[in-house]
Amino acid sequence: MNEPKKQLHLNLFILSTGHHEGSWRHPDAQPQLATSLDYYQQLAKTAERGKMDSIFLAEKYRLTPLIKYRVIPQLEAFTLLSAIAAVTEHIGLTATASTTYNEPYHIARKFASLDHISGGRTGWNIVTSTGDATAHNFSKEHHLDHKVRYERGKEFVEVVKRLWAGWSENSLLVDKQSGIYADVSRIKGAEFAGEFFSVKGALNIPRSPQTHPVLVQAGSSEDGKQFAAELAEVIFTAQNTMEEAIAFYTDVKSRLKQFGRSEDKLKILPGFIPFVGDTEAEAKAKERELNKLAVSEYGIRSLSDLLKINLFQYPLDGPVPLEDLPSIDEIQGQKARFQLYVDLARRENLTIRELIIRTAGGRGHFTFAGTAVQIADEMERWLVNGAADGFNLMPALLPGGLDDFVNKVIPELQKRGIYRTEYTGSTLREHLGLTLEHELVTRS
Amino acid sequence: MNEPKKQLHLNLFILSTGHHEGSWRHPDAQPQLATSLDYYQQLAKTAERGKMDSIFLAEKYRLTPLIKYRVIPQLEAFTLLSAIAAVTEHIGLTATASTTYNEPYHIARKFASLDHISGGRTGWNIVTSTGDATAHNFSKEHHLDHKVRYERGKEFVEVVKRLWAGWSENSLLVDKQSGIYADVSRIKGAEFAGEFFSVKGALNIPRSPQTHPVLVQAGSSEDGKQFAAELAEVIFTAQNTMEEAIAFYTDVKSRLKQFGRSEDKLKILPGFIPFVGDTEAEAKAKERELNKLAVSEYGIRSLSDLLKINLFQYPLDGPVPLEDLPSIDEIQGQKARFQLYVDLARRENLTIRELIIRTAGGRGHFTFAGTAVQIADEMERWLVNGAADGFNLMPALLPGGLDDFVNKVIPELQKRGIYRTEYTGSTLREHLGLTLEHELVTRS
Repeated sequence: MNEPKKQLHLNLFILSTGHHEGSWRHPDAQPQLATSLDYYQQLAKTAERGKMDSIFLAEKYRLTPLIKYRVIPQLEAFTLLSAIAAVTEHIGLTATASTTYNEPYHIARKFASLDHISGGRTGWNIVTSTGDATAHNFSKEHHLDHKVRYERGKEFVEVVKRLWAGWSENSLLVDKQSGIYADVSRIKGAEFAGEFFSVKGALNIPRSPQTHPVLVQAGSSEDGKQFAAELAEVIFTAQNTMEEAIAFYTDVKSRLKQFGRSEDKLKILPGFIPFVGDTEAEAKAKERELNKLAVSEYGIRSLSDLLKINLFQYPLDGPVPLEDLPSIDEIQGQKARFQLYVDLARRENLTIRELIIRTAGGRGHFTFAGTAVQIADEMERWLVNGAADGFNLMPALLPGGLDDFVNKVIPELQKRGIYRTEYTGSTLREHLGLTLEHELVTRS
Repeated sequence: MNEPKKQLHLNLFILSTGHHEGSWRHPDAQPQLATSLDYYQQLAKTAERGKMDSIFLAEKYRLTPLIKYRVIPQLEAFTLLSAIAAVTEHIGLTATASTTYNEPYHIARKFASLDHISGGRTGWNIVTSTGDATAHNFSKEHHLDHKVRYERGKEFVEVVKRLWAGWSENSLLVDKQSGIYADVSRIKGAEFAGEFFSVKGALNIPRSPQTHPVLVQAGSSEDGKQFAAELAEVIFTAQNTMEEAIAFYTDVKSRLKQFGRSEDKLKILPGFIPFVGDTEAEAKAKERELNKLAVSEYGIRSLSDLLKINLFQYPLDGPVPLEDLPSIDEIQGQKARFQLYVDLARRENLTIRELIIRTAGGRGHFTFAGTAVQIADEMERWLVNGAADGFNLMPALLPGGLDDFVNKVIPELQKRGIYRTEYTGSTLREHLGLTLEHELVTRS
């Protein structure tokens, strides 16, 4: 009897007209639908037709002036995912929420509520946010230091897990006869007093189908990797090549043991931008068409923001000024992405213009243009070589790039026996082949 | 030609199995559905069939030990209303959010998002929360003082209105040809620095259909009334008799002028608990049946909490110990309700048991049992005598009490020409016959 094949997990990262910064200018793009519920519901339904594990929404608490050149507006994650939950049945719903600018009690309530509403389909992408511009929207002068942010993040996660696990399965007696609704001895307060938070009471929402959302993490810095190894069930990461991805995968998986976790408890999903064509030439033409739509001023500005240097003072067709960049130690946010861009520019000896084009489609994520068979080959290669447990799909153009993928690549993956043909579970954690860890319910 | 008749506005206050504290014990009650999306969607659809202006959800950030005797759990307001928005078309969606335990930037985003998702149907019930138990869930030792809470609340509202109005109607150019997506000169940051909040940036969600939610207020203390007169478009209030309601209505409406507002800019909706029967006797029997289901220990405890005195040390059938109560000046939260209970007990010379029964159904709100004609008579009487612009409907038992009201009382109100037979507008503000005030968009 054959060993069952390792299964691929797919998450759809939804972003307005697509992940390519020029996507909104494409003739097929409908940027005026960036705040339309129906648009997002349709994307989610397509992903569900493709039997994907989850959809995922990023979330920022500030507006960048780069909106001049790009579709930035997006509906708030919890309200949008809840309205999507109402019209879908299976697909997971992963919301980003920051531990730096939120209160644990609120976040615990929102996820518990969404988990009830969706029948156990929630995931939480835990972020610590970046930049002083966000701090300035929350009555703070400065953003917290990288290290402090992660310490606060860990404490935040501990508090919300206590809140979620505070309700026993059988807390509610609902005894109409005696008039006793709840057994209050089976509902525990958080009773937490730490460095960043004190939260005393119990959650006012009963235990949800998953107890708590699947915990997702997306930082790939040293602190980020440790955080993920200790607490996360899924990690989103940006890896430009399979070799880099294997190194990252091996590194992160090897860290799990120190926290008493087995390697299969954390699923690693690198970002992936596929361009699907009926021929390889058609696929590459699609990629080129989008690259031509990128606005170079946007590219120079966003690259300047990331690399912490004013690139307008350098020739666009000259080399990326690697020697003038700050050192990685000076970088406070998006450390891993900074390193990824520097490595890419150095390895391929890129000019500024070339680096902008190379990253316009997916900010350094793995990009591949080809036929459905070629794309499936590439995905299977990453899967079997220990580079990924699946992918965080980031279509360059939406909805077209998603439609292409679901209609053409998904059947190819299914034919190979590495991807589900039907949902077998009902919760996101079941889709991912995971079970609940770190149960806190026994404390009392 | 006849003057058009003054129109009645109806809001449905949704609370698990109903507003009567014993409702969950009723044979028809389904307390196990307290966290079921479908249950709330059905209630909203019934209210929409009844052409009501809005549904409304209260929201607390703590769990009371009184859950022992009563259904307390409720889904989080934004996630629940968004999932309801997805399956309704007309009805308004009013969420409670506290200005004491939230950040303006988050609240502005959530309402803007829900307003987009629902096509302009949102309302915001602005509360300042009560009690140290809430503070303890947010890393605070004590709840803020009454006066400070309202000062913070006013500043909070100013900040979110700046954020909502920061986007001009024509901020988005979406010019695919030139590559310019937004005219950043038409998107203003809040640029606010006050006593409680500093918020610099602009919202990252474009102007929503209503620009901002209908502003609702529910405090009836002196501070609450001033707050409402200055800022609110709807006020929910608890009035036990028509005479008290007229005094309140006259008082609040007279305060509008000092803020340059006309009296029709604020709709006053007293709470109303109707018991509908085919005969008066049947209606009264329904009320008695629920009163019998109230658990007296719950009543004594919750009354003790409200009156700030341990009533277990007094005989249940003795008089309410009015002389032992603290003075109104010492009360920090629910001041108006404290006064209402004291007045009721004094006026009717009630025992503790009688006060519990009188308030079990609706915590002092106007309660009336009768036929559909009698109930419509009573509602019309309040409307034409200047006691109300409509009602905040609080069915004692859900869904039955709502079904009765929609099936029997609504047609009676429609026959009299004092209630809509079809929705004529699409936004909640239009349902209420209001237009947007306090436009901040001109500042620049």
